[in-house]
Amino acid sequence: MPKIVTFGEILMRLSTPGFQKISQAETFECTFGGTEMNVGAALVNFGFDVTHVGVFPDNHIGKKAKSFIRKLGISDKEIHLKGKRMGLFFLETGAVSRASQIVYDRADSAFVNLNPEWFNWEEILKDADWFHWCGITPAVGEKPAIALLEALKVAKKLGVKVSSDIYYRSNLWNYGKTPQDILPELASYSNVVLASRKNIEEIFGITTEEDKGRFQMASRKLMERYPNIEKVIDTERIQISASHNRLNARMWNGDEYLKSQTLDVTHIVDRIGTGDAFLGGFIYGQLIYKDDLKSLEFGNASSALKHTIPGDQNLVDIIEVDSLMAGDGSGKLKR
Amino acid sequence: MPKIVTFGEILMRLSTPGFQKISQAETFECTFGGTEMNVGAALVNFGFDVTHVGVFPDNHIGKKAKSFIRKLGISDKEIHLKGKRMGLFFLETGAVSRASQIVYDRADSAFVNLNPEWFNWEEILKDADWFHWCGITPAVGEKPAIALLEALKVAKKLGVKVSSDIYYRSNLWNYGKTPQDILPELASYSNVVLASRKNIEEIFGITTEEDKGRFQMASRKLMERYPNIEKVIDTERIQISASHNRLNARMWNGDEYLKSQTLDVTHIVDRIGTGDAFLGGFIYGQLIYKDDLKSLEFGNASSALKHTIPGDQNLVDIIEVDSLMAGDGSGKLKR
Amino acid sequence: MPKIVTFGEILMRLSTPGFQKISQAETFECTFGGTEMNVGAALVNFGFDVTHVGVFPDNHIGKKAKSFIRKLGISDKEIHLKGKRMGLFFLETGAVSRASQIVYDRADSAFVNLNPEWFNWEEILKDADWFHWCGITPAVGEKPAIALLEALKVAKKLGVKVSSDIYYRSNLWNYGKTPQDILPELASYSNVVLASRKNIEEIFGITTEEDKGRFQMASRKLMERYPNIEKVIDTERIQISASHNRLNARMWNGDEYLKSQTLDVTHIVDRIGTGDAFLGGFIYGQLIYKDDLKSLEFGNASSALKHTIPGDQNLVDIIEVDSLMAGDGSGKLKR
Amino acid sequence: MPKIVTFGEILMRLSTPGFQKISQAETFECTFGGTEMNVGAALVNFGFDVTHVGVFPDNHIGKKAKSFIRKLGISDKEIHLKGKRMGLFFLETGAVSRASQIVYDRADSAFVNLNPEWFNWEEILKDADWFHWCGITPAVGEKPAIALLEALKVAKKLGVKVSSDIYYRSNLWNYGKTPQDILPELASYSNVVLASRKNIEEIFGITTEEDKGRFQMASRKLMERYPNIEKVIDTERIQISASHNRLNARMWNGDEYLKSQTLDVTHIVDRIGTGDAFLGGFIYGQLIYKDDLKSLEFGNASSALKHTIPGDQNLVDIIEVDSLMAGDGSGKLKR
Amino acid sequence: MPKIVTFGEILMRLSTPGFQKISQAETFECTFGGTEMNVGAALVNFGFDVTHVGVFPDNHIGKKAKSFIRKLGISDKEIHLKGKRMGLFFLETGAVSRASQIVYDRADSAFVNLNPEWFNWEEILKDADWFHWCGITPAVGEKPAIALLEALKVAKKLGVKVSSDIYYRSNLWNYGKTPQDILPELASYSNVVLASRKNIEEIFGITTEEDKGRFQMASRKLMERYPNIEKVIDTERIQISASHNRLNARMWNGDEYLKSQTLDVTHIVDRIGTGDAFLGGFIYGQLIYKDDLKSLEFGNASSALKHTIPGDQNLVDIIEVDSLMAGDGSGKLKR
Amino acid sequence: MPKIVTFGEILMRLSTPGFQKISQAETFECTFGGTEMNVGAALVNFGFDVTHVGVFPDNHIGKKAKSFIRKLGISDKEIHLKGKRMGLFFLETGAVSRASQIVYDRADSAFVNLNPEWFNWEEILKDADWFHWCGITPAVGEKPAIALLEALKVAKKLGVKVSSDIYYRSNLWNYGKTPQDILPELASYSNVVLASRKNIEEIFGITTEEDKGRFQMASRKLMERYPNIEKVIDTERIQISASHNRLNARMWNGDEYLKSQTLDVTHIVDRIGTGDAFLGGFIYGQLIYKDDLKSLEFGNASSALKHTIPGDQNLVDIIEVDSLMAGDGSGKLKR
Repeated sequence: MPKIVTFGEILMRLSTPGFQKISQAETFECTFGGTEMNVGAALVNFGFDVTHVGVFPDNHIGKKAKSFIRKLGISDKEIHLKGKRMGLFFLETGAVSRASQIVYDRADSAFVNLNPEWFNWEEILKDADWFHWCGITPAVGEKPAIALLEALKVAKKLGVKVSSDIYYRSNLWNYGKTPQDILPELASYSNVVLASRKNIEEIFGITTEEDKGRFQMASRKLMERYPNIEKVIDTERIQISASHNRLNARMWNGDEYLKSQTLDVTHIVDRIGTGDAFLGGFIYGQLIYKDDLKSLEFGNASSALKHTIPGDQNLVDIIEVDSLMAGDGSGKLKR
Repeated sequence: MPKIVTFGEILMRLSTPGFQKISQAETFECTFGGTEMNVGAALVNFGFDVTHVGVFPDNHIGKKAKSFIRKLGISDKEIHLKGKRMGLFFLETGAVSRASQIVYDRADSAFVNLNPEWFNWEEILKDADWFHWCGITPAVGEKPAIALLEALKVAKKLGVKVSSDIYYRSNLWNYGKTPQDILPELASYSNVVLASRKNIEEIFGITTEEDKGRFQMASRKLMERYPNIEKVIDTERIQISASHNRLNARMWNGDEYLKSQTLDVTHIVDRIGTGDAFLGGFIYGQLIYKDDLKSLEFGNASSALKHTIPGDQNLVDIIEVDSLMAGDGSGKLKR
Repeated sequence: MPKIVTFGEILMRLSTPGFQKISQAETFECTFGGTEMNVGAALVNFGFDVTHVGVFPDNHIGKKAKSFIRKLGISDKEIHLKGKRMGLFFLETGAVSRASQIVYDRADSAFVNLNPEWFNWEEILKDADWFHWCGITPAVGEKPAIALLEALKVAKKLGVKVSSDIYYRSNLWNYGKTPQDILPELASYSNVVLASRKNIEEIFGITTEEDKGRFQMASRKLMERYPNIEKVIDTERIQISASHNRLNARMWNGDEYLKSQTLDVTHIVDRIGTGDAFLGGFIYGQLIYKDDLKSLEFGNASSALKHTIPGDQNLVDIIEVDSLMAGDGSGKLKR
Repeated sequence: MPKIVTFGEILMRLSTPGFQKISQAETFECTFGGTEMNVGAALVNFGFDVTHVGVFPDNHIGKKAKSFIRKLGISDKEIHLKGKRMGLFFLETGAVSRASQIVYDRADSAFVNLNPEWFNWEEILKDADWFHWCGITPAVGEKPAIALLEALKVAKKLGVKVSSDIYYRSNLWNYGKTPQDILPELASYSNVVLASRKNIEEIFGITTEEDKGRFQMASRKLMERYPNIEKVIDTERIQISASHNRLNARMWNGDEYLKSQTLDVTHIVDRIGTGDAFLGGFIYGQLIYKDDLKSLEFGNASSALKHTIPGDQNLVDIIEVDSLMAGDGSGKLKR
Repeated sequence: MPKIVTFGEILMRLSTPGFQKISQAETFECTFGGTEMNVGAALVNFGFDVTHVGVFPDNHIGKKAKSFIRKLGISDKEIHLKGKRMGLFFLETGAVSRASQIVYDRADSAFVNLNPEWFNWEEILKDADWFHWCGITPAVGEKPAIALLEALKVAKKLGVKVSSDIYYRSNLWNYGKTPQDILPELASYSNVVLASRKNIEEIFGITTEEDKGRFQMASRKLMERYPNIEKVIDTERIQISASHNRLNARMWNGDEYLKSQTLDVTHIVDRIGTGDAFLGGFIYGQLIYKDDLKSLEFGNASSALKHTIPGDQNLVDIIEVDSLMAGDGSGKLKR
Repeated sequence: MPKIVTFGEILMRLSTPGFQKISQAETFECTFGGTEMNVGAALVNFGFDVTHVGVFPDNHIGKKAKSFIRKLGISDKEIHLKGKRMGLFFLETGAVSRASQIVYDRADSAFVNLNPEWFNWEEILKDADWFHWCGITPAVGEKPAIALLEALKVAKKLGVKVSSDIYYRSNLWNYGKTPQDILPELASYSNVVLASRKNIEEIFGITTEEDKGRFQMASRKLMERYPNIEKVIDTERIQISASHNRLNARMWNGDEYLKSQTLDVTHIVDRIGTGDAFLGGFIYGQLIYKDDLKSLEFGNASSALKHTIPGDQNLVDIIEVDSLMAGDGSGKLKR
């Protein structure tokens, strides 16, 4: 099966039971999440071989996180147990018009304080088929940004395909650099970029006119500037309420503008990690189906299914995604 | 109140909390279910006197199952504590486009290994008004099939009304016989048969043409062949998603084709046992209302309400069913 | 911030987990609720200073209830620990067409047996901006009715604004008086009355004709009879199912008939206390916005949000209500 | 198997999880208990046929209590669903030097308000071998006292053996009668009385001198006065801490003073109902072993085992009691 | 009742259920603890008026902590909601020879980053009877140390009694100062100091000879050097296992060496906060009994009882402590 | 670190919460256990590299078990997902004189039906330092016995050390062979045998006289007969109660009789898997300390600590064992 490498921070997630507000909770459900690792977890369930590269603190919490990713089926052999604390976040899950809320407590984590020299990327990426990264990594600290850049250079050298989720949350960039300083170079090493039109405009300074087809226009300009980028993908979400979303995905692949079906998710259980579930499904499609539209559809169906699973990771298998992708959203009991 | 006798296997049900996948669960919620017993449980809540006939293993699990049915209000005096194991199943509850999944572990159970001589049907059915059975019983083993046939013969002799749920799951028939070998004779002793048109065609070799009214046609042919059968009923389910179904029931009673209203169940809590809830309601209607359409409506409303209750059994009372049957689906708080 | 005083009974609420029926529950979730206190709790979350006046039994349960209201941020300094028992209720939460059910066990509580002389209303209401009461208080016993009347007289003397929820549940009036005997005098001291047209007709003997505008007509007649009443408000609820309601609020303020938007609550978590949440929001609007329509909208949005929170109290903050009131019901994740 | 009839009140028990104080609990574990019913429950586990006679309210709580006793294996056919409320108590479980605490809320319950004419004792006691009652029943109200006296007269007439637990809690006697008014007549119908020397002195006005053998002396005098009493039994408990007790039982049977071994219970899980467990074991001994010392030993071992089981009832079987009675307190794993 | 002021950091405590290792836990039980606040909490349960002075982050976690201390009955009006994060710790509870373990994650908390100018000590301490502080406060940062020194100066000026727990954990002192630099001046403002002989030697450079009475000797020298110190107290703990400890307390009060009884705690539920429970009891004794030996005994009994309560705070009332202090450790059920 | 290979069946363990009887449980806590895997799990926590060889069913339960052993840190690459069911057992945990009870439901599991040809032992054992097996494996079926014999032959050839736990439960041997038929040959390939004197006599037909030193005598005779056996070890357990055991271990190593200290475990949390914890510790001692007495002590301390951890596996680390082995059983809180 294909070998996937992901790199990024993992946080402990402490969520309230049911729909309790943080103020109500007497217990927190503990799991772990991290956008790149979540992508990997989805791929494990599709049968892939996944290694996550990361840094956890050298204490019982770091060891707990290691056992968590092993449980998911992800290799922990590139996890460094160094440093003092694990970032974490508190989550309360909303419903209807009440939004879910996250309180982050992630400053000064073991990952932020990593040493780029710890990672032997030649070794790590040796047999890999795909490397995935996200824009949070270079946001949280200069050292992660340096390590990521090295990884990308090695990936290019070794011919490993690279996908990136150009996630742009301005309040994370606190070490003196801006997304505009850092992300363009990193993106230039990617073969597939997940980004909205607005992201593209803000990060790369690309402009489009108010007109139909702005996403294609932005994507085309991005790909002209960075010829390594082969495909730009984007997920769209119509938020009817915290309990009800409509999902689709689209792509400019240099030749065509492709768009998936729209899937209706009417009783959301857990919205966190659904974008990562899309990417896991999309990468599966790229490597197995080798068909762009099917990749979008498989990714979109994966994302829809993730909305029904508690926790950060998508845990459905190929049968479940195939069934939905084939149009069966009936949820008929499997005996 | 009317006396009901049911006969069949009961399984331990181990379900994941909330919407967890089986892979996530650290605890399982334990209850018990069995299609015939579930029908009986619904009738207890409508005030009937119900005895379930069955076999549980002679250990703490069998005793636990006995106390479970007593708690429901079903008499356990015809339960035999003999044999080694209780069949069980693991359940994960789906949502939206993710289906619920069941993993069965029921082979070689105490029930499958029963001795037909253990049951004194003359005694058991002496004062009974109704006997209910399901097609799973003759599927799981030859001994249950023999015991069931004896029960049916005695029921006929004593004038006990018989209903049957011709449930046809081919992967359960593993002892050398087929549904076609066994079910027709058993069905011939029934006064009421729950079966889809497709079931009738497959089990009894009856053919219909692609045209309106195929269910009626199949039912009529079935009743011609087996004059003991007075009514054929069928439940229909439109599965919009695992969280949202639409339900109705219909009947051919020899004279008329009757069809209930369609009820919309938009936020499903637990779909298991909803067919049994229909049958419980239908039998109530037959014995109390003595009106076929009302029986269908009462059954259909019962089934709709069961979708909101965790566990295998319908636990609503007559007031709740009457209210929905009378058209009040508003769920207005009762103080 | 404004100072609010509320007066009324508080009950222990014992609710089944998930959607269990009372018959199924092996544990009960314990919280406390009381309509007037719930109004206060909502206002604490909007930054107000709230004191609840009440009576709890002088035992561990009474102390637990005191610590509960402190946790909510309500002052417990006017709670009297006297008497023997705390009223309580058992709750099972319905879904779809299955209604929630409440079993009350509230007779002969410490509150019902209060001594009106315990309360020094001059002191309690000294700096208050608003006093809120509900029609349950004079229903449960003569002593609470007397204490309430005294409070209202003092409030009038001190110029404290008064709102009342003319809640009329006939089965609560068991001490020889009727709502018609008692409520009109109490209502005459209120500046704002929450009442449906039907309530107004039944309690005050006011008649209206079957025609458009009956609520306005009833309100106008009420205000003519009791000139102290400045505004009559009413909440309307279309109950599509126990899981899905539509909400709006309306008002006759002497000059104009005002009506809020209708909000759709499609996945109800907990319906209890949503009327109180409306009133909390409405009072906020009256004191902060000083605008009647905005008060209705803020109240209606508060009520809609409460439907998503387990327990009796609304725990959302101003940001959450403002967001919904501004039309954003998308429930978009807040990081 | 022997048939046992018990009569008395049953309360809902709401206990805090783990060792939480009542002030801490956010959930309560719900079960039911009642001293006479607890005695019966123990006997069900030893194979006896037990019917409890009682009154529960005619609501969902009363029905829940009925299903609870059925689950235990006790017949509910003599339970009357009449009246308005079920008494209840809150329990926090202590440890070491912190005592367990109970907050009662039992006033004005359905049982207290029973109508003695509801019970057809001739029918109820027809085939019974043993009837058991406790001193709480005549304490809580005059009507229960009247019903009990009638039951005792019928029992005597039919030759049913009677045991009584002369439980004397002065704060329960609130309807104008004292234990001294009522208990002597009731005790006079008993064949076996469980009472401490102090109980005998206070209730019956019997005096003994400070000397060895005062229990025997009191018992002898009691039996002289009431010749129907054949045996007086007493349980002794040395309370080293809330977690560690030492238990023994003793008896004067008219001929001999008998005393059981002392059993050391070092890690108490739940102390409630341990006296009832003793009585259940003792009655088993009387009816099966027909040997007084063995009855004391079986009762004392039963009581010791009950200390390890959560809830009010003893749920061990004969094998477990026999094993401890035979001296094996090793708790060796049974596979 | 006496008014108490405490000042110090509060941490969120996330503990594993039962005896799970951190690696096993899927949920964490959430509460809050802080040594000074814990002392205050114990005093609230003895009827005192307690205000805690502290700093929580300005987010949902900080608000949750505020509501937590209000629930305990502590005034939150001197809590500042400023800063970004709340320190926290993970706890696994050991048993027998397996020690409990704590993983701290408390660096850079809102409390550590406080501004000493936020606190108006003249106002805060105006009517106070007692001020309590602990050696952790000056350890975690220079700003807390400055704030504390100011508080102590004001306390002295206003004649408020001061107690201190000279807690000396060297790994907490990371900002460039040592305990020896800071603690002596702070201690010089205390009237009562809790310190072991070893603490006194290490912090103050006081020497004693290996001989009986070294604690008295050290205490005497300390009091000679700092004449404001009137009493030195010390708690001793013999740790037989994580489940079984023996406790006593001792004091040098300038005149006499006093020592409490030794209490045996054989089934420990939660050992955290037991030293704080001692101090709460001791301060109660000082202010109510005004007797040094009784203060030690009340404190020691309080500490013993705290070992049976989950969470950081002592929640027993005076009746429970009095009972144990009077020698009744029988844990006899209170009805 | 040393590489360990274990081979054997793994069962799902469904245990009741707290001290509930099986009859009481509404939920079961789900984990997995297997004696050989448990030994491996203990060694993972000591830093070893462990591979378990086994067979799980090809369904969600088998996958769940795989993720469970990965979470523990055991390699799952030699787990075959083939067959239909996973054996399981229900556990209720006793206390004091009430024994824990296990109900097995393990017949006809995937492991029992394995095909010996699935295992390439040359490959599996290539770099291994140690192989461990237990007498349950050849008991449950002929195919496991054949696979085990092959493994042992390869281990011998490759010079891998072999330990065996000659577990002899007669009711497991149901396929026509006896322990006497099978175990001697298997044992002959072991370097270390864990067996009681009674086991040795019964399995190998070795006789000893009633006299001191019978274990040494039996061991010596065993080693004479099977020269490959270098050491015979035995664990002794004095069962004071289900809550309190005393533990020691002993050995005959051909030269000396060695005996560990006795450790007192006074508050047992979970007794299951404590023998496996001993073996894990013992193997650690053999490979790291290379000292027999230290091996016994490390094993015995490991076993003692396991009694405090819920679940089948020992999860303590070297620091914790070292501390107890060094005599510190004080359970002093680690911060």
